[in-house]
Amino acid sequence: MSHSGSSNYTVSDYLFDRIAEIGINHVFGVPGDFNLKFLDTVTAHDRLTWVGNCNELNAGYCADGYARLKGAAAMVTTFGVGELSAINATGGSYAEYVPVLHIVGAPVTEILTSRKKIHHSLGDGVFTHFYEMAGHVNCAQSWLTPSNATSEIDRVITEMLAQRRPAYLVLSPDVAAAEVYPSDEPLEIDLARRRSSSAALKAFERAATEFLDGHSATVLGDLLVHRVGCIGNFDRMINANNLPYATLTWGKTLVDERSDRFAGIYLGAASAPRARDAVENAERLITIGVEFTDSTTAGFSMNLGVDRVLDISPTQSVIGGRTFAPLQMGDAIDALARVLAEVEVTPHQLKARHTPAEPQPDPDEPLTQNVLWSKVSEWLPEDSLVIADQGTSFFGMADSPLPFGVSFIGQSLWASIGYSIPAALGAGMANPDRRMVVLVGDGSAQLTVQEIATMFREGINPLIILVNNSGYTIERAIHGADEVYNDITPYNWQDIPRAFGGNEDNCLVLDAPTLATLEDALAQAAQNRDKLVMIEVHTDRDDYPQMMRSFTETLGRKG
Amino acid sequence: MSHSGSSNYTVSDYLFDRIAEIGINHVFGVPGDFNLKFLDTVTAHDRLTWVGNCNELNAGYCADGYARLKGAAAMVTTFGVGELSAINATGGSYAEYVPVLHIVGAPVTEILTSRKKIHHSLGDGVFTHFYEMAGHVNCAQSWLTPSNATSEIDRVITEMLAQRRPAYLVLSPDVAAAEVYPSDEPLEIDLARRRSSSAALKAFERAATEFLDGHSATVLGDLLVHRVGCIGNFDRMINANNLPYATLTWGKTLVDERSDRFAGIYLGAASAPRARDAVENAERLITIGVEFTDSTTAGFSMNLGVDRVLDISPTQSVIGGRTFAPLQMGDAIDALARVLAEVEVTPHQLKARHTPAEPQPDPDEPLTQNVLWSKVSEWLPEDSLVIADQGTSFFGMADSPLPFGVSFIGQSLWASIGYSIPAALGAGMANPDRRMVVLVGDGSAQLTVQEIATMFREGINPLIILVNNSGYTIERAIHGADEVYNDITPYNWQDIPRAFGGNEDNCLVLDAPTLATLEDALAQAAQNRDKLVMIEVHTDRDDYPQMMRSFTETLGRKG
Repeated sequence: MSHSGSSNYTVSDYLFDRIAEIGINHVFGVPGDFNLKFLDTVTAHDRLTWVGNCNELNAGYCADGYARLKGAAAMVTTFGVGELSAINATGGSYAEYVPVLHIVGAPVTEILTSRKKIHHSLGDGVFTHFYEMAGHVNCAQSWLTPSNATSEIDRVITEMLAQRRPAYLVLSPDVAAAEVYPSDEPLEIDLARRRSSSAALKAFERAATEFLDGHSATVLGDLLVHRVGCIGNFDRMINANNLPYATLTWGKTLVDERSDRFAGIYLGAASAPRARDAVENAERLITIGVEFTDSTTAGFSMNLGVDRVLDISPTQSVIGGRTFAPLQMGDAIDALARVLAEVEVTPHQLKARHTPAEPQPDPDEPLTQNVLWSKVSEWLPEDSLVIADQGTSFFGMADSPLPFGVSFIGQSLWASIGYSIPAALGAGMANPDRRMVVLVGDGSAQLTVQEIATMFREGINPLIILVNNSGYTIERAIHGADEVYNDITPYNWQDIPRAFGGNEDNCLVLDAPTLATLEDALAQAAQNRDKLVMIEVHTDRDDYPQMMRSFTETLGRKG
Repeated sequence: MSHSGSSNYTVSDYLFDRIAEIGINHVFGVPGDFNLKFLDTVTAHDRLTWVGNCNELNAGYCADGYARLKGAAAMVTTFGVGELSAINATGGSYAEYVPVLHIVGAPVTEILTSRKKIHHSLGDGVFTHFYEMAGHVNCAQSWLTPSNATSEIDRVITEMLAQRRPAYLVLSPDVAAAEVYPSDEPLEIDLARRRSSSAALKAFERAATEFLDGHSATVLGDLLVHRVGCIGNFDRMINANNLPYATLTWGKTLVDERSDRFAGIYLGAASAPRARDAVENAERLITIGVEFTDSTTAGFSMNLGVDRVLDISPTQSVIGGRTFAPLQMGDAIDALARVLAEVEVTPHQLKARHTPAEPQPDPDEPLTQNVLWSKVSEWLPEDSLVIADQGTSFFGMADSPLPFGVSFIGQSLWASIGYSIPAALGAGMANPDRRMVVLVGDGSAQLTVQEIATMFREGINPLIILVNNSGYTIERAIHGADEVYNDITPYNWQDIPRAFGGNEDNCLVLDAPTLATLEDALAQAAQNRDKLVMIEVHTDRDDYPQMMRSFTETLGRKG
């Protein structure tokens, strides 16, 4: 257990020891006068490193990216101004099941009881506004006092890990300095997890046997398999049979996309024919960790039918409309694997891959979106960590089969543009040895671009594919293709990395208007994993990747 | 009345006609798929211009800066992700009495009643989370429907103007397109304002006469005089007598700081002796529009005594502890002017100005904070609009008497770092003919620096004094002078403007490590009002302006 320079053990020590205990090594955020004193505990801690971000929204995205790979993250901001700037990022962590502990430095207790006009407050003497706002985007929260601090820290962190959602603590400097004792025991995280009923599990296994026996089937997996920590169960189940499989865009890279068994990305009525047929026409569809959103189904245009679906979700399963609960996903997947080994279930016969006979692109003609993403996906090393912003980058890459081993991260539900660059910083701190690749358009990059500076400071060296296509192209596809509100102010992207601290030693900036220059730039990126490499690619303002075109056309037909 | 391209008049037309009616000419924000369709009304409107910002927080600060000069502003963002990114800025507008109307584009009504997992929602089928969060930082809000839209638009805008606080509207595209008719009448804004009681006014005037007669007095004014629109009443009162006056930092430039009657900036126990004596030792202290915050009083270290204070606040006045209400500030100030013309009241005798015999600075030695701010304040043209970020820039300039006519804008209560650059964009759009000067340190600028790009696009040409002093110097003064959490990642500030679209025609970037180079740079800035000029000045990491030093020393003595 660490000590913050004093001989006494404090609430602050207790908190940051717990944070280190659950596997967190970095604390993100922005300092402020209400949190400075307990940041001393972080800087003095032997298992924690302080990582100051350029602003709080970026800190929140960064913590989210870190938590998706590490299992949890911690972030410190200051009261009011700081925490509110981060709250959009926390909303994303909530929507997408990412455990981020947000610690807010508050005024000292004496001031909180005074109703005075304190800086960073609304001036009305009410100090609970931000606590109440935070309650909408956290699964557990507490206002720490000397009398509740240790038990509340334990409760909030345990609940955060059990629910895989963000959590929130308010900490005044005087409370942080209050004396307590180190815990004798680690957190009892397992106890907080809900258990399966053995009767539900037995009934599920029986019903699954009956439901699947004698039928053809397809597996459809999605993000929650990863978010609730069931990748191992899922992989074992997949590898023990020969059923075809698909994912939604949210769950991309959950399965081997270059296997013959891969049906493709399912996107409702906007899917390619092979994926749509596999999901909609198999006699039985096994969905695991699937949550249908408008963005992953082209406006809920899926055609499934409850009678043919066996669904495994985090805490219950449903077979042909009949619910089995409480039933944990891991237990249900393991039971499914046993069933599949016993019953007569045949792989749904996949259609041939749709490979449109595209003319060989001229290497010296301007790049198109389709050529761009197919080339980048070919190039990706197998250890890549790909973070795509929600736009042409996301849809473009989603459509390209990636090598198994690549992790693809995006925000299919929350869909907050600007997420990718700060999230890549956090992901890079969590997994520094993997090849980080950021896919981001000019419209998204402008929101949070300054976090490149922190990448330089921390030695995180992504390849950033910056798609300069003159504004919000995904919005042009939806409405107002030529409207001024879909334009952005042009940056000089070639100068951006240098402005944020790039130099010849840590940075390489390339320009790729054509396939030939892109190929050359990717080759240089491969040679320079020890530098931040930015490739500015240029595509036409009105060029949409194939999947985005299908997506918006499907939405258009509906609306 | 304008029409959005169709022959029918819609809720969207009605809303944006009302916005134009109250004197707003620009609508700030960031587009999103839920607001695109009604942004067509903005782009088609003959009295409104769309100004897209680089992100929503910046849009919120920008709208705040605009509203401080125009009287009101409007901002459009998208559901969830967009609105939450702006909510810190809205908190600042609320705390500091700035009317900004925030219009949020929401999913269509059919989806809102579906409980489906829609992008930009938390995925729980509950769509009121963000509405409830917004309620903490708005004085009026409404979720528009076809059946309530026109009356609710009128109510919310009227209340926003009456309370001088932000307001909030949710607008789905289908509601925006619902047909209504243009209003026959302008908004009845005056009716919403509270009135004075004639009895209260009469009693106040009598009590003030008795209270002031035969005594010495000082006037202390603050921000609210400006925020509630009583500058005219205040100036007439001040000009009709010869009492000495002071302001708090929040109200800086409310009075002529170069007049002999100016006692200085009052900062509680951290005040210079002349200001402290004038405020604390006059027999009578007349406070007008004053709200004491920790930041403007060095931790409530003022020593006033209720028995000697006549206080005029927005809707009531208090004399020696006795309250007169309802009494509007303008009526009370006018009554005070009448009283002062009648009674025997003597100006409190001011102490001599404290002008420490500082050695003449060597023009080629490194700049100090004190030399920097004294030089910049000497240089300021009389039409300047100065926006200072909360740090050494704010305290440094607050201590320098400015020419009458200069407007000084800062966030003394909310104190959100990063405010100044986006706020300057908005202020510049509101008052394009004035000399805009932004004072910002490197620690604050990093949060929101990309909004410089929008300045280039809109032809807003401030002088930006960028104080490069290696991090969060105001926080070093409070705690952790040498701690890593008070460091920031160094940017190459000389390259920043070019990266965001600067070039030889629209931009001039200068470096000023010494007094001589600063003088030369300011001379060039004077010659180049048609360009964005950034002067990077360098001061020592641990050099604090005099006022900030007094401030933090006073806080230290208390804590």
